[in-house]
Amino acid sequence: MDLDIGLVFLSELVGTALLVLLGCGVVANVVLKGTKGFGGGFLMINFGWGLAVFSGVVVSIYSGAHINPAVTFGLLSNALATGADYQWAALPAYLGGQLLGAFLGAVLCWLAYKQHFDAEEDPGAKLGTFSTGPAIRSTGWNLITEIIGTFVLVFVVIAFGFQGGADSDTPAGLASLGALPVALLVVGIGASLGGPTGYAINPARDLGPRIAHAVLPIKGKGSSDWGYAWIPVAGPIIGGVLAGLAAPALVAMIAAGPAVGA
Amino acid sequence: MDLDIGLVFLSELVGTALLVLLGCGVVANVVLKGTKGFGGGFLMINFGWGLAVFSGVVVSIYSGAHINPAVTFGLLSNALATGADYQWAALPAYLGGQLLGAFLGAVLCWLAYKQHFDAEEDPGAKLGTFSTGPAIRSTGWNLITEIIGTFVLVFVVIAFGFQGGADSDTPAGLASLGALPVALLVVGIGASLGGPTGYAINPARDLGPRIAHAVLPIKGKGSSDWGYAWIPVAGPIIGGVLAGLAAPALVAMIAAGPAVGA
Amino acid sequence: MDLDIGLVFLSELVGTALLVLLGCGVVANVVLKGTKGFGGGFLMINFGWGLAVFSGVVVSIYSGAHINPAVTFGLLSNALATGADYQWAALPAYLGGQLLGAFLGAVLCWLAYKQHFDAEEDPGAKLGTFSTGPAIRSTGWNLITEIIGTFVLVFVVIAFGFQGGADSDTPAGLASLGALPVALLVVGIGASLGGPTGYAINPARDLGPRIAHAVLPIKGKGSSDWGYAWIPVAGPIIGGVLAGLAAPALVAMIAAGPAVGA
Amino acid sequence: MDLDIGLVFLSELVGTALLVLLGCGVVANVVLKGTKGFGGGFLMINFGWGLAVFSGVVVSIYSGAHINPAVTFGLLSNALATGADYQWAALPAYLGGQLLGAFLGAVLCWLAYKQHFDAEEDPGAKLGTFSTGPAIRSTGWNLITEIIGTFVLVFVVIAFGFQGGADSDTPAGLASLGALPVALLVVGIGASLGGPTGYAINPARDLGPRIAHAVLPIKGKGSSDWGYAWIPVAGPIIGGVLAGLAAPALVAMIAAGPAVGA
Repeated sequence: MDLDIGLVFLSELVGTALLVLLGCGVVANVVLKGTKGFGGGFLMINFGWGLAVFSGVVVSIYSGAHINPAVTFGLLSNALATGADYQWAALPAYLGGQLLGAFLGAVLCWLAYKQHFDAEEDPGAKLGTFSTGPAIRSTGWNLITEIIGTFVLVFVVIAFGFQGGADSDTPAGLASLGALPVALLVVGIGASLGGPTGYAINPARDLGPRIAHAVLPIKGKGSSDWGYAWIPVAGPIIGGVLAGLAAPALVAMIAAGPAVGA
Repeated sequence: MDLDIGLVFLSELVGTALLVLLGCGVVANVVLKGTKGFGGGFLMINFGWGLAVFSGVVVSIYSGAHINPAVTFGLLSNALATGADYQWAALPAYLGGQLLGAFLGAVLCWLAYKQHFDAEEDPGAKLGTFSTGPAIRSTGWNLITEIIGTFVLVFVVIAFGFQGGADSDTPAGLASLGALPVALLVVGIGASLGGPTGYAINPARDLGPRIAHAVLPIKGKGSSDWGYAWIPVAGPIIGGVLAGLAAPALVAMIAAGPAVGA
Repeated sequence: MDLDIGLVFLSELVGTALLVLLGCGVVANVVLKGTKGFGGGFLMINFGWGLAVFSGVVVSIYSGAHINPAVTFGLLSNALATGADYQWAALPAYLGGQLLGAFLGAVLCWLAYKQHFDAEEDPGAKLGTFSTGPAIRSTGWNLITEIIGTFVLVFVVIAFGFQGGADSDTPAGLASLGALPVALLVVGIGASLGGPTGYAINPARDLGPRIAHAVLPIKGKGSSDWGYAWIPVAGPIIGGVLAGLAAPALVAMIAAGPAVGA
Repeated sequence: MDLDIGLVFLSELVGTALLVLLGCGVVANVVLKGTKGFGGGFLMINFGWGLAVFSGVVVSIYSGAHINPAVTFGLLSNALATGADYQWAALPAYLGGQLLGAFLGAVLCWLAYKQHFDAEEDPGAKLGTFSTGPAIRSTGWNLITEIIGTFVLVFVVIAFGFQGGADSDTPAGLASLGALPVALLVVGIGASLGGPTGYAINPARDLGPRIAHAVLPIKGKGSSDWGYAWIPVAGPIIGGVLAGLAAPALVAMIAAGPAVGA
């Protein structure tokens, strides 16, 4: 089916806005002063981001629910590697919708938690609600961690053979469960590989809120840490592209099976 | 199919009673003195409410499992926006069943935790088991938080294309899983947007138990905080109506897809 | 299909043994001295018991996966209320398999955690790993809590229209997910209604391990608290029977729907 | 269908690498100095390993997603017990792929957490990220715990009638959910039976990372505890073989049902 470029833009915008509203929201709930979820722990953050993905995917199935430039670039490199047709015209709509959606989601999160942003005294906690930062700063190792985490995300998403929609054989009452595997995957990646850098694994998820942090009139905010900003953009793109290149072998293997026998 | 108004009332009553019994129950378990789950944390509360929704939806599929006036008003505004027929005669049955069910669920919760309500000394903890209250009190911002949270709830529920029932294509053994997406969504909204106001996102869930708190002979109870009571009613209704108005564009977009291609 | 009484016995035995091995196991992990999960919290116990139900249901689908006398009695009262045929001959096999299975599961749990039972000094912690006990002791209120919790369990299980098996329309690759709804329900009941009595909601789950506690040579064990033992037997049976009597109206309502329209 | 031995090797390698990367990753996140998930608790580790299994299964469905020699040996003993054909030629590919994959997954985990391995001062915490160790050391009891845990794993996996793939009747949009039951099972076994030994329940998962620990230039590492290393190999193999021998009766029983009636 031909893609409607405008709808792709809108679909990715809505999905990414929901992703970032709920994802940044759970961080705000856990780290900002005086919230009911204060100190709720890293597993709560993992579930919050995973279910943010769940919600974002459900509303953006028109465009295949990328809601992440690393997925978009991964599918692009995958198409190039397999010689499949690629609709280049839609690429800017994907990336633009994702970035603008992420920005808007961060603004909505700020509004939902406005009083707790005002009450919080630590500028680092405020920035941490918007964007990721490393536990131990190191250009090389931070990049490697983001590359590995995003490789896993995009590699397994391609293995799902599913990017956000349900096929026509899926019973309608269960169709939204088609968004569950990627949500579970993101809970797992967060719990397992989020320790060193806070798992951006999505350039839009990090850059959009960082821009929002820079331009919003947040009381007592500090630096937006632009020196780090390129790492959660470049790392996920590299990881996604590598996964897209590695995936054709995986897909061929899966398509040849299941050959359960031994 | 024509709705049986009496069954709608009963269905919503049973579903909302179960929702509130389990939902208020998990708060009681986490906050009341001497329970086995005392201090269990916000993620436990999020899962408790999410699974309360799961159970409430399963038993109320006859009426589409609204169990929340914000969903009812969201579907109403959605119908008005799209020019679809609306069965006005059922509206009072929906709202009445929800409110009475929520009241009864709160009474049952009080009975299940009777000794811990008696042992608890803090009147605020008792009220908090029944109804929501803000972390930082502010009419405007509390309202905005409830509007945003409920908008997400109703918007995504409409995207599910599913309000509590399984279609005839769903295998019987998996039909109850049709209630899982909305449960996951509520876990996510609670974790992500519940920090400032405790996420009523449902007028009946807040008002029914507040009335129960006011009329039950709870030992050592304090104020029912009627000054705040309108916010978790008005905020969710506004959020639900806005979602119902915004949803037709979303539904049209989803119906046009998935157009995965790029 | 005619039930094979011997297979019913075996099926319930295996399912209940697995339920109790994993269920008592998570309590052992959280409360016994020196374990890796020590102090893991009530939500961990809730997930542990819920997934214990998941595993127990998967292996006992031949017999409908009651693995709980409260479910067996609930389905019996439901059959009597609706005038349906009931295979009385299988009743002793259900109850006997459940009780013996629960006993064996507790023995296995003791073996798996043998060194931690030996290292633990508090006899109360040891008994708590086997059987439930009230947070605040009170015959009447403890009974009410168990009745309410088990009513919810059996009422919703009947609403599932599913007791442990997948129908022939369920795709084989997803059939085991048919056990997920009851697992989620048990996580929810535990989190929400487990605070006062530790949610036996299953006479076999409590009585079988209590007998094991009494007869096993557990180092430094104390009383098996037989004075309380009848409450987690009687309460769940009463709750299950009441749910079985109330359920026909629910089932009729669900069967008439979904009538989503308003 | 005939198995392609090379693809079996590759499939198991990729699946086990992903399993161990994410599984060891969550332990690193919870125990190593300075991570964002530090002190996240045992339930977080349980979810991390469960979702590691989920991801590993999704990518290795070609080979039936054993990703665990205990599953491979369990299916072998099951085949011998039932007189079914067994493709002996594939056995070395299964075991070799699993061991090499586990080794590579551990190397990737070390790279992802490199700075936190460097910052951590306790050699025991470093080894604990790679391989399991007992809470209380005792050859006999540690072995029994691993046997019981792995018996449950392999017994229930065989009951699923599913080892990693979706059948052709499963709707494509839901196919990856076929990996969810085994993930849930592993969360449950970890929470319930992981307390005494840290639940290897998989010889490759323990031995591969232990070899990695021995050969990698990990800063400040201590002993690889080779004296314990045979227990998480032998225990899971014994448990798996016993489950494979016991399972035919279970499978016959399940195949005769569901006979829900009483």
